Amino acid sequence: METEKQGGFVMKIILDLDTGIDDALALSYALGDPMAEVIGVTCTYGNVFREQALENTETLLKALGRTDIPIYAGPAHPLTRTDFAPTAMCRVVHGEQGFGQARIEPDPDLVQPQPAVEFILEAARRHGSELTLLTAGPLTTLAEVLRRNPNFKNEIGRVVCMAGALTVAGNETPFAEANVRVDPEAAAEVFTSGLPLVLVGLDVTLKTLYDQAHIDHLRALKTPAADLVGGLMQFYLDYYKTDKRRLAGCPLHDPLAAVAALHPDLITTMPVNLKVELEETAGRGRTVADLTRLNDPQKDHQMAIDADVPRFLELFTHALERSLGNRSSAR
Amino acid sequence: METEKQGGFVMKIILDLDTGIDDALALSYALGDPMAEVIGVTCTYGNVFREQALENTETLLKALGRTDIPIYAGPAHPLTRTDFAPTAMCRVVHGEQGFGQARIEPDPDLVQPQPAVEFILEAARRHGSELTLLTAGPLTTLAEVLRRNPNFKNEIGRVVCMAGALTVAGNETPFAEANVRVDPEAAAEVFTSGLPLVLVGLDVTLKTLYDQAHIDHLRALKTPAADLVGGLMQFYLDYYKTDKRRLAGCPLHDPLAAVAALHPDLITTMPVNLKVELEETAGRGRTVADLTRLNDPQKDHQMAIDADVPRFLELFTHALERSLGNRSSAR
Repeated sequence: METEKQGGFVMKIILDLDTGIDDALALSYALGDPMAEVIGVTCTYGNVFREQALENTETLLKALGRTDIPIYAGPAHPLTRTDFAPTAMCRVVHGEQGFGQARIEPDPDLVQPQPAVEFILEAARRHGSELTLLTAGPLTTLAEVLRRNPNFKNEIGRVVCMAGALTVAGNETPFAEANVRVDPEAAAEVFTSGLPLVLVGLDVTLKTLYDQAHIDHLRALKTPAADLVGGLMQFYLDYYKTDKRRLAGCPLHDPLAAVAALHPDLITTMPVNLKVELEETAGRGRTVADLTRLNDPQKDHQMAIDADVPRFLELFTHALERSLGNRSSAR
Repeated sequence: METEKQGGFVMKIILDLDTGIDDALALSYALGDPMAEVIGVTCTYGNVFREQALENTETLLKALGRTDIPIYAGPAHPLTRTDFAPTAMCRVVHGEQGFGQARIEPDPDLVQPQPAVEFILEAARRHGSELTLLTAGPLTTLAEVLRRNPNFKNEIGRVVCMAGALTVAGNETPFAEANVRVDPEAAAEVFTSGLPLVLVGLDVTLKTLYDQAHIDHLRALKTPAADLVGGLMQFYLDYYKTDKRRLAGCPLHDPLAAVAALHPDLITTMPVNLKVELEETAGRGRTVADLTRLNDPQKDHQMAIDADVPRFLELFTHALERSLGNRSSAR
């Protein structure tokens, strides 16, 4: 059952974030899209430590005046490990604390006592097909959800993951995308679980670029929220100006996945059954079609291979204007 | 200008082969498809030495009673090398001489004095849009054609290559398909030449499998040609029974490319601009989307990502029945 609002349908969504800069942009977008009702944010490790993701998320929600959104703590490390630290590259791209040079709120008070995995399981039971889960970090949280309830796939409405690189080179290694590379075992569990997934990976997120003019446009809103988010974007773009791939802007990885979660026709997908390379070789963490299922008529994964870039930019920018334009927000 | 025949249009086609087993199947197919007029076969190194490819092609044409088809000698080694030898794996999959256990005709007399590259250039000038070039071996011949005449892309009708692996693992290495891996520099020259290409790679050729029942059906024709080609197929299938990928038959790489060349709607393609990894790393020879052209509206390559497998099997098998069923063939 979906709720009608502004002529469309409102979709309940949970965002699972390893809150660095593009995660913050995805959340800012979702909170500004009238199609979305964000029922909670779960935080995990990845771009930053899990604790940092919680603090960054709280900092953002306070700046946006959205202290009504609950935050939940998810896993702090990969499935097969007991520790974790962000890579040197993450600290460069997202900043030491994952939020550029922004001042971070310590001691977050929006964080709920319920663990992220339990929140997601309960929300899926309660909202069923009405609920979308967007993962924008490692697939550890989702793997733990599936371990706890193998029937999750019959309860959740839709799962969209910013994950993988099928037809392009990786960003963590030449073969692997960062969210998969950091916990390949989790990705492998998710991919072989039978859970239908929409995957928005580097194949398309490297097409959706934001440039200086886009950022200047948003900073001109001159609200505290636009100051914070505009500053994050600027930090992120400034890194990409130095990136050896020489993209024409900063890639909006997590935002594209979020927009595609709420506007499915934005992307063109290829039906495929993916597997994850787990061997300790150069290819570890690579997402590639599973040869043993090449002729299986059942395709579990819809991998995005193209996106309507102009429409994405329009939806994303309009939602950010709404989200960041509120002059009465806290902070 | 196309010639009407049997209610359809006959397409002139040149096959550039490194004549091992699946090359022989592609040629046998093309000679049996009423849509095709094979105007010549060019032979190159790859599955076998170039001289062996010439001998194997002649052996096949004689068995099929098609001594009217001229053969031309192409390059004998990769662009950046002065020698070549088939890999151990090629000798296992295709046999020591590339033709299973078949008896090979020595001293081929169908081989023309004109070099393959000149034959292709002249044919493109003469037949223009009416001509299709199918490459089923390394891209060396095509690279040399483009070096000799950069305007070739405006003369030839259509070029279809059995080459590459975009969404699946490679067969020569985990990242590279054999035809590209053997001469990555040639593939790179072809891919960056602006020549529009249809690429039929492992993404789809690993879907089109032939099994024992298919082979038994053809061997039951009991002609000399069916004996030869059936024996080749059996050798090839027997190898695939031992392949660690555990496919449900032998993959018809070159035949799928040949059928797709003559029946374009058989495959679903993804528009993309491919590049070839040239660095001496694990990824050497990998075909992957060129990040610098991700948003270029001009897409030079149509990469096959799906195929109508039942229709392929029907077209392929019917053409082979015609090709192999001739009881009056030589030999």
